[in-house]
Amino acid sequence: MFLIFQDVLFEIHLDFLNQSGIKKDLGSVNNKLKLFGLKVLHSISSSSSANTLQQKKTRETRFIREIEEMLYIIGLGLGDERDITLRGLEAVKKCQKLYIESYTSLLSFGISKDGISTLEKLYGKPLTVADREMVEEKADDMLLEAREFDVAFLVVGDPFGATTHSDLVVRAKKLEVEVKVIYNASVMNAVGVCGLQLYRYGETVSLPFFTETWRPDSFYEKIQRNRGLGLHTLCLLDIRVKEPSLESLCRGKKQYEPPSFMTIGVAIDQLLEVEQLRGESAYNEDTLCVGFARLGSENQMVVAGSMKQLRTVDFGQPLHCLTIVGKTHPVEEEMLDFYRN
Amino acid sequence: MFLIFQDVLFEIHLDFLNQSGIKKDLGSVNNKLKLFGLKVLHSISSSSSANTLQQKKTRETRFIREIEEMLYIIGLGLGDERDITLRGLEAVKKCQKLYIESYTSLLSFGISKDGISTLEKLYGKPLTVADREMVEEKADDMLLEAREFDVAFLVVGDPFGATTHSDLVVRAKKLEVEVKVIYNASVMNAVGVCGLQLYRYGETVSLPFFTETWRPDSFYEKIQRNRGLGLHTLCLLDIRVKEPSLESLCRGKKQYEPPSFMTIGVAIDQLLEVEQLRGESAYNEDTLCVGFARLGSENQMVVAGSMKQLRTVDFGQPLHCLTIVGKTHPVEEEMLDFYRN
Repeated sequence: MFLIFQDVLFEIHLDFLNQSGIKKDLGSVNNKLKLFGLKVLHSISSSSSANTLQQKKTRETRFIREIEEMLYIIGLGLGDERDITLRGLEAVKKCQKLYIESYTSLLSFGISKDGISTLEKLYGKPLTVADREMVEEKADDMLLEAREFDVAFLVVGDPFGATTHSDLVVRAKKLEVEVKVIYNASVMNAVGVCGLQLYRYGETVSLPFFTETWRPDSFYEKIQRNRGLGLHTLCLLDIRVKEPSLESLCRGKKQYEPPSFMTIGVAIDQLLEVEQLRGESAYNEDTLCVGFARLGSENQMVVAGSMKQLRTVDFGQPLHCLTIVGKTHPVEEEMLDFYRN
Repeated sequence: MFLIFQDVLFEIHLDFLNQSGIKKDLGSVNNKLKLFGLKVLHSISSSSSANTLQQKKTRETRFIREIEEMLYIIGLGLGDERDITLRGLEAVKKCQKLYIESYTSLLSFGISKDGISTLEKLYGKPLTVADREMVEEKADDMLLEAREFDVAFLVVGDPFGATTHSDLVVRAKKLEVEVKVIYNASVMNAVGVCGLQLYRYGETVSLPFFTETWRPDSFYEKIQRNRGLGLHTLCLLDIRVKEPSLESLCRGKKQYEPPSFMTIGVAIDQLLEVEQLRGESAYNEDTLCVGFARLGSENQMVVAGSMKQLRTVDFGQPLHCLTIVGKTHPVEEEMLDFYRN
């Protein structure tokens, strides 16, 4: 952190403070120091007429960023540990505590114990796995930590992609914790790889696992509408991780179902079942789709074909997602041809 | 590259071959070597009943990937040189020639000469800037190179985000050049940061600069439709870089207009002009919007407010984009509140 005060350059080396352990105690005097710093900045700003309001604001923001403890919400991308950005890794190295969210979108490096240790090796520090329970029930503990020292919350994909972490940001802001988001690829943009243009997508739908008694089909109208407009539809497929079993809920003791991920085959079965019930010809088994598995990983799989065709393809390990194709342009067609079964 | 042949492990060190200069000559014998390798793989596969078809295919693909020269299309993310992923940087280091596309979306590190040299320093090798002319007219030269050695084509954002590079992929595949895409954040998913959920966006629109004689307004129906459905609309704002000037076209000699980037203010003016002409109340100056400037960079700016309010905000340097807000959920509202002017 440095302050330029007229002709004198004051430098406060946060690195040095960190190493010497002084920074640990800074938390408590943080606000005083901040106010002092801002006061100095203001007196500089007002003494110099060359500064625009924009420049003054930027300088202030930068100053607060340097001094303030942060909650970094960092996107990890889609494939494996090498999909973090340099900016993300830099932030991870700065943080004293690392959490990784495990409940919304899991991937090869997130699912297994090995996956976590690969990450820990890369980061040089331990990771705390934050499952649904923890994020929902204990978020405030994590946020209180982020008032004392830098904390990272790692998210597979992008922090505001298929699953948003708005809740966490809202809570953080209420507790006056500074938040910095580090972007990455999300399934929402990576599906672009098949050649269907992202700006030709309509509203995205989520397909939930049907149970015997619960078969919601509100996605049907959305797909119908998109197709009516010639737009593509991205279908996000259900992920069930650490769901309490019905039986355990009845017994009042938490036990979890094994994790399950909807395959493209199951998704197509459910889609066709709903079409048969509704009978409004939103799509049928000959409708062109693109199936994606493990987007971003070394063995990602992208196959284009009719629902009937894709239903029989073995897409292998999760995660899967599916695009129902709308009206295509010639270049989109040419690209899809490379992925046809 | 390694081949497991029953109990024996054959290793062919590509690194060693590279260093010794032998790999340079591999291009010509590439196909023979590939066929030989696949033959060995097949004989192993058929001798082992434990292999599923999927495993065999994966092994084959991996083998081809190791031996084949590649065109890497690498997303650089949105902010600066630190937004490349580790996987992307690894690929860059492997490549003998690096191109960077400059014409579609430019950003701080792409615009200036300094920006390029920062990248070159990080990559440890020179960069060739590929402007629109080059990508459109000389892509095949680059692709022919990619048949001889590894080539990287670097793209700001994600390769299939706001601007797709499908054309290049189609050409590559026709020339039998292997393509590998390395994903990153795109403006299409990074706008999620304001708290409006990506799956509640309808079709994306592009706002072109109006000229005296050319004022296309096909975006109007799309926005109207999205708003009718309660969906948000992402407006991508025009970028004009290296556009031949009208005068120069008449004189048959290529001269370029200075680059220009549509600001949020101009976008709103154009939107309101069209609303006034069409008069179908798709939106008005009180419609809630979110303006984004320099997404992903250290000084990114996100402001929520009515069109009337945002029109007077100085968003500073490019790039800008704009979301016209649809119907919001309570969590979306809470997040937007943090960004209100």
